[in-house]
Amino acid sequence: MGTRWKGKNTASTAKSNPMSQIIAQFQSSLSLSNAQAMLSNQTALFEATPDLADLLNRSCFGREITAHNKTKRWFQFTLEETFFLNQNLHALTIVTDKDCKVDNVELWEYMKSKKAKFPEQYKAYENLRAKNWVVRSGTQYGGDFVAYRHHPALVHSEFVVIVMTEGDDDDGSNERLRVWSDLQCGLRVCGSVAKTLLVLSVNKNGSDLSSPSCLDKFSVEENVVERWVAEQCREEDLSGKGKRSVVAEQREGNCSGQEEDCL
Amino acid sequence: MGTRWKGKNTASTAKSNPMSQIIAQFQSSLSLSNAQAMLSNQTALFEATPDLADLLNRSCFGREITAHNKTKRWFQFTLEETFFLNQNLHALTIVTDKDCKVDNVELWEYMKSKKAKFPEQYKAYENLRAKNWVVRSGTQYGGDFVAYRHHPALVHSEFVVIVMTEGDDDDGSNERLRVWSDLQCGLRVCGSVAKTLLVLSVNKNGSDLSSPSCLDKFSVEENVVERWVAEQCREEDLSGKGKRSVVAEQREGNCSGQEEDCL
Repeated sequence: MGTRWKGKNTASTAKSNPMSQIIAQFQSSLSLSNAQAMLSNQTALFEATPDLADLLNRSCFGREITAHNKTKRWFQFTLEETFFLNQNLHALTIVTDKDCKVDNVELWEYMKSKKAKFPEQYKAYENLRAKNWVVRSGTQYGGDFVAYRHHPALVHSEFVVIVMTEGDDDDGSNERLRVWSDLQCGLRVCGSVAKTLLVLSVNKNGSDLSSPSCLDKFSVEENVVERWVAEQCREEDLSGKGKRSVVAEQREGNCSGQEEDCL
Repeated sequence: MGTRWKGKNTASTAKSNPMSQIIAQFQSSLSLSNAQAMLSNQTALFEATPDLADLLNRSCFGREITAHNKTKRWFQFTLEETFFLNQNLHALTIVTDKDCKVDNVELWEYMKSKKAKFPEQYKAYENLRAKNWVVRSGTQYGGDFVAYRHHPALVHSEFVVIVMTEGDDDDGSNERLRVWSDLQCGLRVCGSVAKTLLVLSVNKNGSDLSSPSCLDKFSVEENVVERWVAEQCREEDLSGKGKRSVVAEQREGNCSGQEEDCL
C-alpha cells in the first residue's frame, strides 16, 4: 500500500529528523540519567523528567499515564519495550516493586512468565526497531504489532505485523495463518485500512531458551503478503521494476540496522 | 449491527415473499423435473430450464456460469449446496461424469475426499439454511460463510460465519480463533463491513463419520461475538430489553426451521 504521510511536508520533516538519530539521543539521555523502571505485572512503570518525557514521545516508547499530579510524568512500557530498552539500548535499569535490581536472567524469566510467546514476539519487535521502524501494538487490527516509518503523528502505520514461529510446528505453536480463511481475514483487515500484511517468521533454530543469549541464535524471515489482482499486473513493466505482483514476496533479513527505513 | 436493507421497500418485499416459500416452491419444481447435477471436482454442474434458473436465482443456490450459448443455462453448486439439495431437500439426483447415479454413501465419501472439514462445514451450512438464512461463501471476509436474511439483492449479509469444531481440540482441528489476535482480526473485518461475527461450534459428539447419518448426531452451538463498548452500555435499560451488552452472547440452537428469520 505504500507510505501514507499525514498532511503536507511531513515526509520532509521526517527525513530531516531520522528516527535513528532521535533514538540515539534518547538512548544517551536515558543512560546519563541512570534511569530505572519498575516491573508491574505486564508493564514497567517509569517516572520521566520533562526532557526524557519529550524524548520518549518523540521516539515512541511507552505510553504516558494521565495523572492528576501534573508535576510528575509517568510512562508505561510494554514487556517488549522494557526488554529492548534494557537489553538492546542498555539504557534502562529494571527494578522490582521492592526496588531490587533485576538482572538479565531474572528479567528474561519474568518476561517469559508473563507472556509465553515472549521470545518470538520480542525477537520480532527488536528486528523491526533495529531497522528504525516505530513499533506499536497491533491489537486493533488483529495483529501482533503495527510498524510506522516514522512518528505516528507524521505517518500512518504501514504494516500490520503477525509473528509466526518456524521450526516447531508439531507443538502447535503457530496459532495464526493455519487456514486460508485466517489469512483472508488478515488481508481483508489490511486492505480496509490501507496497510500491508507483514509476516515475521521467527525460527528459534533449536536454541535453549533458558538465557536471553538464545535470541542471538534466532533468525527472522520477513514476508509481505498481498492480494494479487490479475488485471493490475497483466501489462505491467516486465523489467521487474513495476508494481509488486506476487502474492507473497520474500525479503531477506539482511538489512543493516544503521540505514534508515531499510526494510 | 442489525439488518441493512438495500433501499426503500425492500424489507416489505422480503416480508411478502418469505424465503421458506421460495425454497419450498424451488424444491417442488426441482423434484418434478427429475433434476440431476454432475460432480465436477469441487462443484456440481447443473443445466437449468428457464423456470428452474429463475427459482435458483431467487432461492440463491448455485452460481450461473456465463456461457456463449445463451439457450443453455448452466449453474455451479458448491459441495455444501450439492449435498443440501440432495440430502436435505431430496430434490436433486447426483451423477458422475460418466452419468452413473451416486448413492448417499458414495456422495458422502466424495465430499469428504474433496474437503477434509466437509462434515462440520456442511452441518453449519444446513443449520443456517434450515432456518431460512441465505448462505454464501464468506471467503472475502475471511469467514467460512456469510448469512443473509433474504436475497442478496434486497439485503446486505448480516453475519460472517466461522465454523469451529468442538470436542476434539486435541487433534488441532480448531484452526481459527485460537489466539486473541485472530478473534480481533475477525471482529475488525466485521466491524468495517457492518456485519456481526457468528461462530458456529459444531460438536461431532464422537460420532462415526463413515456414513452421512452421523450428521443427525452433531450438535451446533451458536455464538455471536461483538465488541463491548463501555460508554454505550453504561446507562442502558437494565430490564434486559436494551442493546446487547455482552462480548459473547450465546443463542441456543432451539429455533424451529419453519419460522422465518428466527436465528
